[in-house]
Amino acid sequence: MDEDGRGDSETSDHAPASSSLNRRQFLAGSASWLAISTSPTLFSAQAEGPNEPIDPTRVPGASPGPYGERSSFEKQTRLVASASSTTPLQDLQGIMTPSALHFERHHNGVPAISPSRHRLLVHGLVGRPMMFTVEELKRFPSVSRFAFIECSGNSRDGWDEAQDLTVQHLHGLTSTSEWTGIKLSTLLEAVEISREATWMLAEGGDAAALTRSVPLTDEVLNEAMVCYGQNGEALRPEQGYPLRLLLPGFEGNINVKWLRRLKLGSAPFMTRWETATYTDLMPDGKAYQFSLVMEAKSVITKPSGQQQLRPGFHEIQGLAWSGRGYITAVDVTVDAGRTWQAARLQEPVLPKCHTRFRLPWRWDGQETIIQSRCTDDTGYRQPTRESLIKVRGIHSSYHYNGIQSWKIERNGIVKNVHI
Amino acid sequence: MDEDGRGDSETSDHAPASSSLNRRQFLAGSASWLAISTSPTLFSAQAEGPNEPIDPTRVPGASPGPYGERSSFEKQTRLVASASSTTPLQDLQGIMTPSALHFERHHNGVPAISPSRHRLLVHGLVGRPMMFTVEELKRFPSVSRFAFIECSGNSRDGWDEAQDLTVQHLHGLTSTSEWTGIKLSTLLEAVEISREATWMLAEGGDAAALTRSVPLTDEVLNEAMVCYGQNGEALRPEQGYPLRLLLPGFEGNINVKWLRRLKLGSAPFMTRWETATYTDLMPDGKAYQFSLVMEAKSVITKPSGQQQLRPGFHEIQGLAWSGRGYITAVDVTVDAGRTWQAARLQEPVLPKCHTRFRLPWRWDGQETIIQSRCTDDTGYRQPTRESLIKVRGIHSSYHYNGIQSWKIERNGIVKNVHI
Repeated sequence: MDEDGRGDSETSDHAPASSSLNRRQFLAGSASWLAISTSPTLFSAQAEGPNEPIDPTRVPGASPGPYGERSSFEKQTRLVASASSTTPLQDLQGIMTPSALHFERHHNGVPAISPSRHRLLVHGLVGRPMMFTVEELKRFPSVSRFAFIECSGNSRDGWDEAQDLTVQHLHGLTSTSEWTGIKLSTLLEAVEISREATWMLAEGGDAAALTRSVPLTDEVLNEAMVCYGQNGEALRPEQGYPLRLLLPGFEGNINVKWLRRLKLGSAPFMTRWETATYTDLMPDGKAYQFSLVMEAKSVITKPSGQQQLRPGFHEIQGLAWSGRGYITAVDVTVDAGRTWQAARLQEPVLPKCHTRFRLPWRWDGQETIIQSRCTDDTGYRQPTRESLIKVRGIHSSYHYNGIQSWKIERNGIVKNVHI
Repeated sequence: MDEDGRGDSETSDHAPASSSLNRRQFLAGSASWLAISTSPTLFSAQAEGPNEPIDPTRVPGASPGPYGERSSFEKQTRLVASASSTTPLQDLQGIMTPSALHFERHHNGVPAISPSRHRLLVHGLVGRPMMFTVEELKRFPSVSRFAFIECSGNSRDGWDEAQDLTVQHLHGLTSTSEWTGIKLSTLLEAVEISREATWMLAEGGDAAALTRSVPLTDEVLNEAMVCYGQNGEALRPEQGYPLRLLLPGFEGNINVKWLRRLKLGSAPFMTRWETATYTDLMPDGKAYQFSLVMEAKSVITKPSGQQQLRPGFHEIQGLAWSGRGYITAVDVTVDAGRTWQAARLQEPVLPKCHTRFRLPWRWDGQETIIQSRCTDDTGYRQPTRESLIKVRGIHSSYHYNGIQSWKIERNGIVKNVHI
């Protein structure tokens, strides 16, 4: 096989820095792969569990099933808190989040809603107020799109002293799915929306009955959806089954789940959820309200907090995303910001969607700090923690998107630090 | 709201034929959506099951959980046969197939394999035969890509008399996932593949120990992967956990699951699986062997076999895919082939991946036949059944990709027919 048959897309576009490497170096340095011995041990080990045969080739396997489950050897889980759970970013592959591991955030639990009895009421400044069943909504022209949803409180520990936590704990309130539903604009056309309508109240049918005001900007009218599908099948209960609002790029809570009501109006409705909470306290003591867009953020997921490295060859991986559009670049430093290298972005790069980045790296066993910073197609570049705090102060709870620093100690332990 | 705020991407690019409609007509014709009455019934119906509250807004919902499950109201399943199961295409949304509903085909059941004890042996015409653990493979540079996998026997009923079956039964041996793993070329570089190696044997670690010969073409070396990931998490057991070969665009069985051995050689290995089976019997009595690529195919999934329509407005939906690359167009006829309209393709259109198409349609209640036909970026157009049989005869079992015809009877029942 010659070099041409392989392509070189794995390696960085930048000239190699001292600590970077090409694939040949990567392979040559991988000392743990042993040439095969004369007596392979493939079939001689003891079984690990009662359901596992000593030799899977000698017993017939399981029959086909109606709805599959993951292997019992797989144990990755969401990290569960009282009213939320986080996606295990350190274990994710590619850009999709398995529906079973999509982060959760709810304000009074996950309701059990029958799709046949659920209704969506659309009223207010409309010519023709209507109430829809789920089946009726499914008969409209449909759309699907990939999009991340991120809780506005994701990464909030960044505002405080650095704690020794995992990437899942620190940044796991973000997930990506393929969503399917009806365009909001199609629905608003059906109810003959008034020309005076510029805001819309969205209300959930859970026990919190969460309400948020949505500005009807061109972007919202072009992109917002009322969704009934996630990753090829129905929405998961934690994601709003049977209906949720999707506002790609906006903070999670305004993507109202268990959606039961949309009311059109000419001003924001000033609900509890956008006055008493979900505002950002600025250095001058004023609260910044309707800070809806999730700005560009990236984080290295491998290696990340509480993992331990051996010296040698590693592929740095992480995720980047922007509520404004596409990720155009992710740069990675392995020397605490002295030099930066362009990571490779996994295709397809989709707007308002997780984008995976990768960079091969050899860790020399010395203490260092690694970081990633991303740029989106508006030209916006993810800020350092210092520059973010300069503008925002330290009294916010939401919308933290500063650069994440992972310190790698001489023993290989990875720690969350602020620099 | 004005027309500009909406875009017109929902409608066909073609001039409307008599049976097509724009969105305004679609909405105006939807008589089943009622204007709201004075007393909404949202909270008065009886609960349907013991776990469902009368009013989900008045009782706290369920707590966050470590690994989510779908709603108990959702019942879509794979259709299970003795050694296979099919994806419910009529229920899918978007382009992703939920891992739990990915089709299955195995020749001696699904083995239970411990990832810590599984090994991949790579030997034959290589400079450095090696045996890898799964963890070792995960330390290599990784790649992810979206790809369909289709069983070569999918749609095989097309060779015979038309039976009254569902689209799941007829065409459900195809599914799309995001796959993650190591590029085959990276692995072959690690074992120092010989320049003489032009074929590769792939062997599964299940009780069938299925073996296939893979030609090491440029396309294979550029695209093939040894996968450990599916849709963000580990491969599902039915898809080869912990390792499978992925040969995008090739027939399903050569994407060897439970992969335990790759042997490099200079000729095909002529295994039982490519001699006694998985060949196509041609009209001259000879068997066409190594017919690996799945040619372009499309099928309307909504409406489809055994569904029943009411006269009025429908969005025709379906899936198209090609083992050669991208789908560039899908045309739909609603008058048995007299006229064709371009369906809208859902973005992103990805190579060797399911592509969803949509076309709004008003059914006038008259008997008709609907079909879809797709074109890929090589210029290949999906053949009619008649033209396919002219070349291939009727003694094949595999690689049927003729145009699917759905007859809609006056009572609205949809039936599989050959025309």
